[in-house]
Amino acid sequence: MPQSASPSLRDLENRSAFVERHIGPNDTEIAHMLGVIGHDSLDAMTDAIVPGRIKSPLALDLPDAITEVEALARIRGIADRNSVFRSFIGQGYYGTHTPNVILRNILENPAWYTAYTPYQAEISQGRMEALINFQTMVADLTGMEIANASLLDEATAAAEAMTLAKRSAKSKSNVFFVSSAVHSQTLEVVRTRADGLGIELHVGEDSEAANVDSFGILLQYPNTFGQINDYTELADAAHARGALVAVATDLLALTLIRAPGAWGADIVVGNSQRFGVPFGFGGPHAAFMACRDAYKRSMPGRLIGVSIDAEGKPAYRLTLQTREQHIRREKATSNICTAQVLLAVMASMYAVYHGPQGLQRIARRTHRMAAMLASVLRQAGCTVGPDFFDTLHVVGVDAAAVHAKARSARINLRAIDAHSIGISIDETTTRADLVALAALFDARIDDIDALDAATADALPGTLLRQLPFLQHPVFNTHHSEHELLRYMRSLADKDLAMDRTMIPLGSCTMKLNATAEMIPVTWPEFANIHPLAPADQATGYTQLIDELEAMLVEITGYDAVSLQPNSGAQGEFAGLLAIRAWHRSRGEGHRDICLIPESAHGTNPASAQMCGMTVVVTRCDKDGNVDVDDIRDKAAKHADRLAALMITYPSTHGVFEEDVVAICEAVHQHGGQVYTDGANLNALVGVAKPGKWGSDVSHLNLHKTFCIPHGGGGPGVGPCAVKSHLAPFLPRTFGGKGDVGMVAAASFGSASILPISWMYITLMGQAGLRKATQVALLNANYIARRLAPHYETLYTGRNGLVAHECILDLRPLKDATGIGAEDVAKRLIDFGFHAPTLSFPVAGTLMVEPTESESLHELDRFINAMIEIRAEIRAVEEGKLDREDNPLRNAPHTATMVAGSEWTHSYTRELAAFPLAVLRQQKYWPPVARVDNVYGDKNIMCACIPIDAYKDEVEA
Amino acid sequence: MPQSASPSLRDLENRSAFVERHIGPNDTEIAHMLGVIGHDSLDAMTDAIVPGRIKSPLALDLPDAITEVEALARIRGIADRNSVFRSFIGQGYYGTHTPNVILRNILENPAWYTAYTPYQAEISQGRMEALINFQTMVADLTGMEIANASLLDEATAAAEAMTLAKRSAKSKSNVFFVSSAVHSQTLEVVRTRADGLGIELHVGEDSEAANVDSFGILLQYPNTFGQINDYTELADAAHARGALVAVATDLLALTLIRAPGAWGADIVVGNSQRFGVPFGFGGPHAAFMACRDAYKRSMPGRLIGVSIDAEGKPAYRLTLQTREQHIRREKATSNICTAQVLLAVMASMYAVYHGPQGLQRIARRTHRMAAMLASVLRQAGCTVGPDFFDTLHVVGVDAAAVHAKARSARINLRAIDAHSIGISIDETTTRADLVALAALFDARIDDIDALDAATADALPGTLLRQLPFLQHPVFNTHHSEHELLRYMRSLADKDLAMDRTMIPLGSCTMKLNATAEMIPVTWPEFANIHPLAPADQATGYTQLIDELEAMLVEITGYDAVSLQPNSGAQGEFAGLLAIRAWHRSRGEGHRDICLIPESAHGTNPASAQMCGMTVVVTRCDKDGNVDVDDIRDKAAKHADRLAALMITYPSTHGVFEEDVVAICEAVHQHGGQVYTDGANLNALVGVAKPGKWGSDVSHLNLHKTFCIPHGGGGPGVGPCAVKSHLAPFLPRTFGGKGDVGMVAAASFGSASILPISWMYITLMGQAGLRKATQVALLNANYIARRLAPHYETLYTGRNGLVAHECILDLRPLKDATGIGAEDVAKRLIDFGFHAPTLSFPVAGTLMVEPTESESLHELDRFINAMIEIRAEIRAVEEGKLDREDNPLRNAPHTATMVAGSEWTHSYTRELAAFPLAVLRQQKYWPPVARVDNVYGDKNIMCACIPIDAYKDEVEA
Repeated sequence: MPQSASPSLRDLENRSAFVERHIGPNDTEIAHMLGVIGHDSLDAMTDAIVPGRIKSPLALDLPDAITEVEALARIRGIADRNSVFRSFIGQGYYGTHTPNVILRNILENPAWYTAYTPYQAEISQGRMEALINFQTMVADLTGMEIANASLLDEATAAAEAMTLAKRSAKSKSNVFFVSSAVHSQTLEVVRTRADGLGIELHVGEDSEAANVDSFGILLQYPNTFGQINDYTELADAAHARGALVAVATDLLALTLIRAPGAWGADIVVGNSQRFGVPFGFGGPHAAFMACRDAYKRSMPGRLIGVSIDAEGKPAYRLTLQTREQHIRREKATSNICTAQVLLAVMASMYAVYHGPQGLQRIARRTHRMAAMLASVLRQAGCTVGPDFFDTLHVVGVDAAAVHAKARSARINLRAIDAHSIGISIDETTTRADLVALAALFDARIDDIDALDAATADALPGTLLRQLPFLQHPVFNTHHSEHELLRYMRSLADKDLAMDRTMIPLGSCTMKLNATAEMIPVTWPEFANIHPLAPADQATGYTQLIDELEAMLVEITGYDAVSLQPNSGAQGEFAGLLAIRAWHRSRGEGHRDICLIPESAHGTNPASAQMCGMTVVVTRCDKDGNVDVDDIRDKAAKHADRLAALMITYPSTHGVFEEDVVAICEAVHQHGGQVYTDGANLNALVGVAKPGKWGSDVSHLNLHKTFCIPHGGGGPGVGPCAVKSHLAPFLPRTFGGKGDVGMVAAASFGSASILPISWMYITLMGQAGLRKATQVALLNANYIARRLAPHYETLYTGRNGLVAHECILDLRPLKDATGIGAEDVAKRLIDFGFHAPTLSFPVAGTLMVEPTESESLHELDRFINAMIEIRAEIRAVEEGKLDREDNPLRNAPHTATMVAGSEWTHSYTRELAAFPLAVLRQQKYWPPVARVDNVYGDKNIMCACIPIDAYKDEVEA
Repeated sequence: MPQSASPSLRDLENRSAFVERHIGPNDTEIAHMLGVIGHDSLDAMTDAIVPGRIKSPLALDLPDAITEVEALARIRGIADRNSVFRSFIGQGYYGTHTPNVILRNILENPAWYTAYTPYQAEISQGRMEALINFQTMVADLTGMEIANASLLDEATAAAEAMTLAKRSAKSKSNVFFVSSAVHSQTLEVVRTRADGLGIELHVGEDSEAANVDSFGILLQYPNTFGQINDYTELADAAHARGALVAVATDLLALTLIRAPGAWGADIVVGNSQRFGVPFGFGGPHAAFMACRDAYKRSMPGRLIGVSIDAEGKPAYRLTLQTREQHIRREKATSNICTAQVLLAVMASMYAVYHGPQGLQRIARRTHRMAAMLASVLRQAGCTVGPDFFDTLHVVGVDAAAVHAKARSARINLRAIDAHSIGISIDETTTRADLVALAALFDARIDDIDALDAATADALPGTLLRQLPFLQHPVFNTHHSEHELLRYMRSLADKDLAMDRTMIPLGSCTMKLNATAEMIPVTWPEFANIHPLAPADQATGYTQLIDELEAMLVEITGYDAVSLQPNSGAQGEFAGLLAIRAWHRSRGEGHRDICLIPESAHGTNPASAQMCGMTVVVTRCDKDGNVDVDDIRDKAAKHADRLAALMITYPSTHGVFEEDVVAICEAVHQHGGQVYTDGANLNALVGVAKPGKWGSDVSHLNLHKTFCIPHGGGGPGVGPCAVKSHLAPFLPRTFGGKGDVGMVAAASFGSASILPISWMYITLMGQAGLRKATQVALLNANYIARRLAPHYETLYTGRNGLVAHECILDLRPLKDATGIGAEDVAKRLIDFGFHAPTLSFPVAGTLMVEPTESESLHELDRFINAMIEIRAEIRAVEEGKLDREDNPLRNAPHTATMVAGSEWTHSYTRELAAFPLAVLRQQKYWPPVARVDNVYGDKNIMCACIPIDAYKDEVEA
């Protein structure tokens, strides 16, 4: 075993150790797998797959890999450049204490953060229960009938409220009235969106709203300056003329003041950030939207509903999916296709842990302190408005002087103008803070308890909350740490996430979310920076953002990147806005045709529509490739109005199309711009750069290619990358310059999770990134090759190879046996797997993307399951299994099914539960049987299940 | 809902919020439960339970509760007083990188840290697999035939090696030879232990060993100065005269040098700390012991073995439990009754993650750097010994000057003497470190790679490792992060820990291990301090330790506390050593009789024996109380030789005996000292103080009463608390003064987990601590009362009430039905519960201690399960269930049992798996059926199971 000569220190240092941890197969296994697909080396395989015209001639100009220890030390240094001041800025973001048990067991727990969007209902019951708690919490507090499972941020939620009002209001006006007292970032995002859709904004004092003919109005309650106004009459007036009333609000305030639903609001939005989610320099946080029942089918975003399963038991599912953009495509009025699940789960658990009394106590304490401070400041000669919850608008001060004093006390206040200042009190405010705040205004607090006793509440008496809230047992049971810990564990155990199995989702790139990448996210220096903190307190963030942008520029071949978009769809929207603004800047504002191949993801047409573009669909050929001639023809035909082509590369069909360069040239020739959807960038990094082969703009999905975890359905980050001519048209930052407005509430979107992608790129280094891409290609081709005798791969590219994913065609089998892709997807659950992407982009198929992080062992485990399933289908075909009553149609099988006395099926219990012997050693049991989709959409029920729904079962 | 007047700020601040999180029942529930047991208030109940003579008249003189945020801020301040230097001190402790995926998913994961000792094999398969990996790793690397599942620290392991040699060697000598080149802390602990047992130590140069007539010799390999010597001849000589050879060694070195088993060692011990476990100022770390097969039945500590379950499948269990102290009692030669499971699991996962090649690479890199440094230092004129692995003994330097330079470079070197210095290189050493180290000796490294190329290895050529190691697949499979993550999760999922269920273990106090308490443990300022770092770098630790000692003094009523003992048994040993030394100091060294009631825990007589005391057992009466008259009689009878009485209070029978004060007086009257076992302190905190009612000394279990988690069977912390007259006889700290030597390797034992207890006491405050005790009493009495119609509670105290635990007597049922306590324990697994303590202190009973942290909901869940089980027993009694074939005898039921086609039992599958309807919603499935204990002890197999053991099953 010992070698005679020791390897060199350089070899022993193994600085690319992380590359080996991230990439599943080791070099021996890679060699074996290359043998299976018939290539000698990763490079030879890559040459065979990737068209020569797009391949990058040079290695990435990025540093080499470093170790986890080194990378953590570097980012520690960056974090230390941020200064954590006490922030009383408010404006939509408030200090909060994340309960430690939630921090460790949700935010830092891979069982939660590595989960995927709950499309496969049976393996997602845990997080859907948490989300329905969120929906119940929001609906209860806002006094509305239904709430969705979160939106990206309060500002985009407000913009969505506008479009929901537009399509739901009786009024035919094209005007949307926005109160001048909404948060300025909300106004800006609403404006960006209105501009895209051609909606006319009217911004004015609340009092003007009654006099403007609009289809809807947006108010803020309490408003951005903290004031709580009674909008009852305004709402009545709006309703009288057929307009809808949208309100941005604050959940904590609503524990004390009248619910908007009680005074006439139709749509309510806001941010749940202060329910236990740190500032994070702007995000991610879970925004929310609630509305009246009448509008639920038009409401954007995801909605968790209750249906029943095949055993007749209650079961959660994503409801009303037909509303989603991937169904409505160019008819969609929203491109929302994600949520902020991880953060919504945290906020919901915050409410579960504190319960209604606990939340109200936090709110009362916050209000008490605000009222006390107001009292002291008034005594000191300041003017402070009446009727507030937590935010004081302090007028008649030398603002510059106060801010200067504040800085030296490491305190941030809100800058409003030269003579006024905003101060927002929150859960974290201490007695010492109160004393320090008073001192900034030369006021003194000698005896806080005496001040407390002498100070009356400042809530308007007519607007005190009357409606009870959070009365469901879930909010009144788990108040001890053991109870909450066990509740969270019981939910996590119901779900399949990447800590138990690969999630081979085509186009969603579920790769390793390494622990070292996650660790910096919860460091206080990243977590506790207010998004509007002065720039000199965020120099660490600035460095991180600059470096990450530069890395992404190098990787993509573009010239500039904006990290503001907080989802892929927002990145698309930003990209198209840039194209539109560029055309306008050249006097070609009339260009409004967007070519989109029929194979495109549904967000593409939805985003185009949001920019006021007209979608022209182009065809695909029988091999799944975009039809180049059709694009050429349509580009020529619409040359006068051609704005853009949107294309996904490699294609959504999982192939590297040969003609992409020619396509780009054709579009450019006719004056259009090329938008390349970055969903499949994991097949390109280190191998080819869209910015170099002719594409003008892409959005990237940091939550796919760059390791930000999916969090059970969000957060995502969707940077927009552009060539230099489009750079001036990237979204503005807060208070910044530029032709294009903000597309998200915060300048840098979900800034606090950017360390994840920075860490990934830094850890992998240039060679590691390329190798990851190559192994992603290898893993996909290995699966395709191994499964070839059993399943047909629908599309292949050059040399019969696929890209980083492959589409398995189940349609021929369905015709022959009645067993379809969904049956296979559900049967995989019995084998302990999360299903591949189901029926996208082609109905009746499964799209498999293993990613580079899956080991040969895991790939083989999946392949064995798929082969066994194929054998079961064959048994149906051959009549050995019944066409109706077989383990595929009845999948997944729960423990209560197979362990019940009654077993009426024509196959064995063992076949149902343990189709492979290895499952006897480790078995995932789905908590519910197959969920009934039709029932769920017919009987919409989107709040916590009343306990007696389980009654029959429990008493059985 | 809104109240007219707001509560005061002080009320709203809710500074005792943590008390509500820690204590399960809320005040409404407490009132209900008090009603069930017939009392009006917690105080009234307490008065009814606790004898007036022992009750504390005053509240604890401790601060009030503070919030989690405040407590974390305070301990952050304490942590910041520690200075983390780069430590090259070595001497048994080396820098290491904890893989992040292990840090987050083992050390910071409640599924691992809240687990209990794996006495219930069926719900402990996961951690036992990890421990068998540990055993395999140790046996492989040391070249021995068998290894145990860890010991407390290297020094106590060496002491255990001495006693193992004593009882196993053919030689009748009473001399144990210890090399003067073992670590000084090892020598000190061995000396303490030898002194207790009357073994004569001979300390000398290695070369002397051959000439000393001894029953065993202890060597260190590599030795404390880093040198690697060939001990083959020495071993042969020792064997020739019937002595055994014990060796302390280093696992990382053994990846490169010849295994001790290959040159004749009989017993091998060491510390696995450098396999991923931080310094922690001395602990906890997992020490190990391996030995030849011949000695396995005499080996101390826990041993995981492989047996089979009721389905014939391989299953892990604690093997050879008959060796344990609780069986052998006063015949035991070791009082070891715990291990360092959590740390052993970490170390084993480190090996699983790195694999043999990875470990060898780390070792080679470490050695390379050491060799390069040696080369440079020699060039600079220093003398450095030959034949080393990682540690240089640098001679001929002005040590004081070098140390001074080192300090200013924030570097620690080992102080040896005025002219020599030790430097230990480790996994964390960087190129920059090497340059900095050289500079301390005025040596320069210009080109590290050139130096590398020019430097030969310094391992002795005759002692290169030949034996392969870690060839089992488990060490060669999980090398990607996904693979390891999933492996760790799959193991965790097999086990039941407190994150899923209460663990109602009598006498083990499994209460909440709150997240806020755990958080500081992994802060670098606590984790990365070397135990021998200069005191001025550990001022934070000093403050923490001083404050914690003061808290414990106030709580117990004693005058001084030593935190050195790293288990309860070590605390006992330290307490008895103090008593013995005190007697000696008074010229009464002949006092050697220790009275111990027959109901005592087995460690009591074992510890007494280790101090050279003679145990005299006293009787208990039929109510389970110690027989006061018998104690009086025996104290009088042995008055001349009476050294001590050891008593547990409240008793192991779960009652507050009335006469404890009288008992203390009687013992004192006859010249003895009273030792109170602190196992049941959770029934006393804030209510009564042993130090005030006449006891002289106690050990406390911080891992019971003070929230340090059990970690699956360790770490524990067992402080020794004494009255002032015994204070001078507490164990010395390293290099300190005192009559009694160290009982553990590090001055403050497992220092890095002391923040947990500090946080607990700080968070609870004086009132919270008392309330916790009262609710612990309430919860136990609630269970006893609710179960009274179904099970007999064996012993009760005043007013028919129990203390904090109750013993349910299954013996009458066993006689009637054949169903015994073990059947009930195993049947509880089918209900998702960890069993109570089985057959201790009374065979055929279950002892239930719910602790205050369990909610009414959880208590009722347990009670419902127990009532249902009682109904099943009744069904057996009434002939409705078969006497042999019933769900109790066959419990636990695995999924493969109930979901198999074949079901031959006379009861239904539903009764087997879902005896309560609620289990259909959430069900724990044990991974194995009932484990066969007899088979396991007959067929001892304590290493990883060969893959083909699963073959039949997998191919079935």
